[in-house]
Amino acid sequence: MPSVRTPDPNPGWLSEFQLEETRSRVPILYVEAVPVRLDSLGQVEQVGLLLRGSTTGALARSFVSGRVLHGEPIRTALMRNLEKDLGPTAFPQLPADIVPFTVAEYFPLPGVTPMYDTRQHAVALAYVVAVTGECDPRQDALELSWLTPEEALSPAILEELEGGRGVLLKQALAHLGALG
Amino acid sequence: MPSVRTPDPNPGWLSEFQLEETRSRVPILYVEAVPVRLDSLGQVEQVGLLLRGSTTGALARSFVSGRVLHGEPIRTALMRNLEKDLGPTAFPQLPADIVPFTVAEYFPLPGVTPMYDTRQHAVALAYVVAVTGECDPRQDALELSWLTPEEALSPAILEELEGGRGVLLKQALAHLGALG
Amino acid sequence: MPSVRTPDPNPGWLSEFQLEETRSRVPILYVEAVPVRLDSLGQVEQVGLLLRGSTTGALARSFVSGRVLHGEPIRTALMRNLEKDLGPTAFPQLPADIVPFTVAEYFPLPGVTPMYDTRQHAVALAYVVAVTGECDPRQDALELSWLTPEEALSPAILEELEGGRGVLLKQALAHLGALG
Amino acid sequence: MPSVRTPDPNPGWLSEFQLEETRSRVPILYVEAVPVRLDSLGQVEQVGLLLRGSTTGALARSFVSGRVLHGEPIRTALMRNLEKDLGPTAFPQLPADIVPFTVAEYFPLPGVTPMYDTRQHAVALAYVVAVTGECDPRQDALELSWLTPEEALSPAILEELEGGRGVLLKQALAHLGALG
Repeated sequence: MPSVRTPDPNPGWLSEFQLEETRSRVPILYVEAVPVRLDSLGQVEQVGLLLRGSTTGALARSFVSGRVLHGEPIRTALMRNLEKDLGPTAFPQLPADIVPFTVAEYFPLPGVTPMYDTRQHAVALAYVVAVTGECDPRQDALELSWLTPEEALSPAILEELEGGRGVLLKQALAHLGALG
Repeated sequence: MPSVRTPDPNPGWLSEFQLEETRSRVPILYVEAVPVRLDSLGQVEQVGLLLRGSTTGALARSFVSGRVLHGEPIRTALMRNLEKDLGPTAFPQLPADIVPFTVAEYFPLPGVTPMYDTRQHAVALAYVVAVTGECDPRQDALELSWLTPEEALSPAILEELEGGRGVLLKQALAHLGALG
Repeated sequence: MPSVRTPDPNPGWLSEFQLEETRSRVPILYVEAVPVRLDSLGQVEQVGLLLRGSTTGALARSFVSGRVLHGEPIRTALMRNLEKDLGPTAFPQLPADIVPFTVAEYFPLPGVTPMYDTRQHAVALAYVVAVTGECDPRQDALELSWLTPEEALSPAILEELEGGRGVLLKQALAHLGALG
Repeated sequence: MPSVRTPDPNPGWLSEFQLEETRSRVPILYVEAVPVRLDSLGQVEQVGLLLRGSTTGALARSFVSGRVLHGEPIRTALMRNLEKDLGPTAFPQLPADIVPFTVAEYFPLPGVTPMYDTRQHAVALAYVVAVTGECDPRQDALELSWLTPEEALSPAILEELEGGRGVLLKQALAHLGALG
């Protein structure tokens, strides 16, 4: 058990055992970001979807997402995960206010709620983040695809979004007035 | 350590040791509610502030708040904590959308950020909740005071709000158009 | 021409000629309300759609809507139009904050934008309003239908919504987390 | 009376007489923007306030604001007024969603509501807009001052904001989490 008093060389990071144990005790707080390219008037032109290996081994599409670490402000967590998933030259423009466009709830059992995460009960603060630079997906992401709202809303793409996130995409595009 | 496979008779509830350990590992997710009385046009007439014993033993004012338990939907957590703090006949009207008016971040060290919680790193989804019935504070709350926005914004009251929540009150009233 | 100095017996109301002239000069401000029935946790159970004669003579579905009159606060306009369209015993619960879930823009030419109003350039502040009483549509509304979100999102219903308001309905339900 | 059928060489622009007459008939729709400079995490560092001659001849501070013209989309009106007030090299980043942080209501009589506009009943959709370039106020604005949130919230500055817009500034900063 980590002591709260001894400085942690990797604060916020947990061992696999600790993370598993924690996941059985409390909902885990995430930030999630839908990357977008905007025109000069702020209208969404494209939505960025990551292609990555899912927990089942199959390929799946997803958004930028990651845990908020212990002691980490939400804005820092958002920027850290954007850099992790989009690379160092994406130049994401974090929103001026911290209010998410929705709060996404993921429960472990598929089918109970529209969105699920078989690993855990997770609660994600979901943001739309404008990206102005070049994206270079790192880590486990294989590719970042930029799609128009119409392309992104196609049934095939919605189906490929991991954990029921097709609903989250529709919520993001509805919020942006880009549903159709 | 609780097993994730054995059904838990009190799901979500943790022993003191487990809670303390978890608090050292991840930010703890809370819901927080500012109770209000509205007139027939939806304008805020009064804000409800709880008076309770603070963690230091002194009296302090606060809002309705509590943890989101493992496996518990946000709306259920919000209603459970409203009933816990306001009693069974308050008849809170939960908002139709789950987007909070702000996300409040509490860090353990006072002074680093406007709001703090010496016990933990907590992140609270903050809502305004209209209350139409009779409130009967339970548990550790001594009293519920209904104040007009002007009264609530007095320096004395703002100072009595626990953990720097005077800022949260001002944010809530700004959101409601009741600052000036 | 009405003088701004002589008290107007029907403030805000304009003759047909004045209204037509004004519509050619400035965008006309509207409020629009999507009536909903909520369960005890605030989740939407049903959406209310008005059936009325459209401007073309055909039957069409719509939401509660109407102009904001000169000198009239937005909340008053919202309540007045709710009473006009839902009757005196609907008991609408106006939201505590005046921020709309979206701003709907209607231009005169169909096809240019998703939503249109052949009479005018209109800008509507769009709200979700919980209704707890009995609705008794008045004036030109023939009927109020309560539909589940799933029913309301059927292609047939979306198509029947006047002026492209199927988009507005999807935005409202996305905002409420009731899309999926 | 302008015909709606003859193309207007200056669509949306009205003669003084037409504007005065229209102002006596309907609320006039405005967009209003609080310019901000953000740090790399999206936190507000400075707020931009315009200094200009007020309607009474005295100097007064204000935000970017202007009418939405007939036939003009809100985003276009916002960009046009930002360029008018901040010059062509301000590079404002329009928000991805069109939902304002508040709707500001201005009535002609001071004292009735916190905000007023002696010329008219105006309703303004109010946005926070990040500005990344160099500002060069044009037209009737004498100067643009960049102030920290603390400086901007000083009683002297709040008092200098025209038409009671000190309330609007507090609402904007509350929305950004920059009140305390």
